[in-house]
Amino acid sequence: MLPFTKEEYQERVQKVKSTMAEKGMDVLFLVEPANMNWVSGYDAMSFYVPQGVVVSLDEEMPYWIGRFQDQYSAHVTTWLDDEHIRPYADKYLWEPKVVHVMDFVADFIKEKRWQAKTIGVEKDAHYFTAHWFERLTAALPDAKFTDATNMVNFLRAVKSKQELDYMGIAARIVEKAMGNAIHMMEPGVRENAVGAQILYDQAMGTGAFGGEYIALNPIIPSGDRTAAAHLTWKTEGCYENNQLVYIEIAGCYRRYHAPLARTIFIGDPPKIVSDTAKVCVEGINAAMEAAKPGVTCEEVERVWQTTINKYGLEKESRMGYAVGIGYPPVWMENTSLCFKPGEKTVLQPNMTFHMMPGLWLEGYGVAITECIRITDRGAETITKFPRQLFVK
Amino acid sequence: MLPFTKEEYQERVQKVKSTMAEKGMDVLFLVEPANMNWVSGYDAMSFYVPQGVVVSLDEEMPYWIGRFQDQYSAHVTTWLDDEHIRPYADKYLWEPKVVHVMDFVADFIKEKRWQAKTIGVEKDAHYFTAHWFERLTAALPDAKFTDATNMVNFLRAVKSKQELDYMGIAARIVEKAMGNAIHMMEPGVRENAVGAQILYDQAMGTGAFGGEYIALNPIIPSGDRTAAAHLTWKTEGCYENNQLVYIEIAGCYRRYHAPLARTIFIGDPPKIVSDTAKVCVEGINAAMEAAKPGVTCEEVERVWQTTINKYGLEKESRMGYAVGIGYPPVWMENTSLCFKPGEKTVLQPNMTFHMMPGLWLEGYGVAITECIRITDRGAETITKFPRQLFVK
Repeated sequence: MLPFTKEEYQERVQKVKSTMAEKGMDVLFLVEPANMNWVSGYDAMSFYVPQGVVVSLDEEMPYWIGRFQDQYSAHVTTWLDDEHIRPYADKYLWEPKVVHVMDFVADFIKEKRWQAKTIGVEKDAHYFTAHWFERLTAALPDAKFTDATNMVNFLRAVKSKQELDYMGIAARIVEKAMGNAIHMMEPGVRENAVGAQILYDQAMGTGAFGGEYIALNPIIPSGDRTAAAHLTWKTEGCYENNQLVYIEIAGCYRRYHAPLARTIFIGDPPKIVSDTAKVCVEGINAAMEAAKPGVTCEEVERVWQTTINKYGLEKESRMGYAVGIGYPPVWMENTSLCFKPGEKTVLQPNMTFHMMPGLWLEGYGVAITECIRITDRGAETITKFPRQLFVK
Repeated sequence: MLPFTKEEYQERVQKVKSTMAEKGMDVLFLVEPANMNWVSGYDAMSFYVPQGVVVSLDEEMPYWIGRFQDQYSAHVTTWLDDEHIRPYADKYLWEPKVVHVMDFVADFIKEKRWQAKTIGVEKDAHYFTAHWFERLTAALPDAKFTDATNMVNFLRAVKSKQELDYMGIAARIVEKAMGNAIHMMEPGVRENAVGAQILYDQAMGTGAFGGEYIALNPIIPSGDRTAAAHLTWKTEGCYENNQLVYIEIAGCYRRYHAPLARTIFIGDPPKIVSDTAKVCVEGINAAMEAAKPGVTCEEVERVWQTTINKYGLEKESRMGYAVGIGYPPVWMENTSLCFKPGEKTVLQPNMTFHMMPGLWLEGYGVAITECIRITDRGAETITKFPRQLFVK
C-alpha cells in the first residue's frame, strides 16, 4: 500500500514537468532523497550510494535508478512499473576513479536518446557530489546541464490533505516523545536514558500508528552545552540541579516530519532564563499572529525580531524553515523558504514550517518552537504542546 | 574530555601531512564528517550544512570552518584553539546561487595566502556537492585543485588501541540490542516495537557506557521484504508465523561503530532457509580463517565465493567493508577496502571490517555477519554473538 494514490503522484509529476518546461529543461535527474520520494514514492535507507529519479518531459512515468540490492525496495515502495526501475550492478560502486554509477546514468540517458537534451541536475543537493557532475558531463558532452537545485523542493511546499494528515500523526508522536522526556528529566537521571526514551517513543508512535526513523537524531544538550545548536546527550553524564536542557526532536510518519523544541530548567530558573523564555514565547506568539496567506516570509521574521529587540535581544539565524518529507541528514525542506530577512516568498495556505524562535546567548540557549500550517486566514500549530519553559 | 589524547590527534595530522606531501598537495579541505572527526575531534550533528577541516602542510594545527551556531561544539569537541575555529555567519546559507559558504572558505584560503597552492578536495565524498566545487574554483582561479576522495579514509583503516577499545564497547552495545530484539520477536509483536527496543538499547548502551546515535537506523525487514537490503520496520504490521526476519544494526561509542547482522526465522524454518544459513556460516568461517596480515582483500572474498559456489550459490556484491568512525548517512569507511574481486590491498594488523556474507535469493535474504579485527596472525571477531540462524 503506497502512502498516496497514483493520481497524487501523477499530479506531482505534472507539476514538475510544468516547471521543467518553464525553465527549458527536457530531462531532470533528481537525487535528493526527499524529492525522489515525493515524485516516485521511493523509500529505503540506500541514500548513501548514488541513486536518482529521472523525469522527462516526453514520458508520463519517471525512472528510478539505483543499486541492484535496492530494486526490490523500488518495486514495493514506488508506483513505477518494471520498465521504469533500472538497477545498476555493484561493480559501479566503491572506486570513483575507475567506474562510477554516473557512467551507468549516462548510458541510460543515451539509451533514451536524451544525450543532446537540456538536463537539470541538483547541483547543491545533499549527495550530488562534484565527482558525479564531472563524470556526467564528461560522458555526455552534447548535453546541456542546468541547475535544478531546490526546484522540486519548492513544489513540495504546499501540502495536500493526505500530507497534512501524516504530519498530524507525526505531531502526535513528537508530543508523546517530548512529554515523556520532560517527565523523566530529574537530577541524577542519565542523559542517554532520556535520549533512549525519546528514540523509543519516536518508533513506538501513537499506538495505532507506529513511528518511523527520524532524519536527524535528538538534539538534547544540557548546561553549557545548550550554547551549541547541534549536540546530543552525554553518554555518561547525569542531569544536575540548576541545569538548563534544550530538546529538539521530531516525529515522523510516512517520512513526513513534525519537529518540536522545548527548553527545560531543572531547579529554580534564574530570572534571565525565565525572562528569555518569556521573550521567546511572546516572539513566537507575535510571529504566529503575523503569519497568513499574502504575507512574506521576511515580514514574519521582522515581527519576531521587532518583538525580541524590545528586550535588547537579537537572533542572527533564521527563525523557521519549511518542513515535510525528510531523510538523513536533515528534516528541513532545503529551500530558501525560511523566516529570514530578504525572503520575499509569499505565504500560501497549507505551507508548513518549523517555526523556530531560539535565543542562543552567552553560555546558554533557549528555544520554544512549533510545527505550523498556514491556514486560509492565518496560521495554526500542527504540534499541540504547552508553549512555555518547563521547570522541573 | 576529548576521546583521544592531543598526541593521538597530532599523529593523525602528521600522517595526513605525509600523504599530502607525497601527493603534492599543500592544503587539504576535508568535508567528510568522519574525516573531520578523525583529524580534529569535531562531533556535532551539523553535517547538513557546509563545513570542513583544513589541513595545511605548513601549519601544525588544522582549522575548523563551520556555522556560527556550531562554534561552541567546535570548542568543546576539538583539540583546536580559538584561532583555528572559524565560524561563518548564517547569511552564507540557504541561497546557493546568491552567497555560499564556499565564498567564505575561499576568503579564508586567501587570508592564509594559499590561493595559488595545490588544494586537495574530497570530490566524491558525501556532502561535497558539484555546486561547492564550482563556487570554490570560480573564487580561487589560481589554485590547483586535486582530488583527495577517500585519501584520509584509508589512513583511518588501521586502528589504535584506544580506537579498538571504543569499538569493543560498541560491540557490547550491539550484542545487547541484537539479543533483546531476537528475544522479543514473536508472532503478533509489532515490528515497530522491536525497532523501538533496538533504538532504546543502542542509546542505553552497556549500563556503564551509554551508547551514541547510530549513523544508520535499524535495517529490519520481514518476510518478502528481506529480499531488499535497506528496508526498516513496518509501522503497523506484526511479525507472523513462518516468517523470515533480517536485522542489521550497529552499536556506536565515541562515533566508532560495531555493526552486526543476524537472520531469524519465526516458526519451523524451511530446509532452503536453514541450508542457506549453514552455507553463510560455513562461508564466514572460511573467510575468517583466510583473513590475516599479508593476505589481500580479494583473496578473502574468493574463499567466501568458492565456499558458497560449492552449493551452487553466488553473491554479486562485496562481502565486507572497512568500518570505524561513522556519521549519517552510513557507518562504513567509504574506501575501496572491501572484500571484493579486484581489491588488492593487503590486510594489516588492527584493520577492522564488517564482514558481511549475505545471500539475497528469490524472495528472501539471509545474512549472518561479524565485526572483525585483523590480528597479528589472523582475524578475530570484535562482536561476540552466536553465529547462526535464530529460530523462534
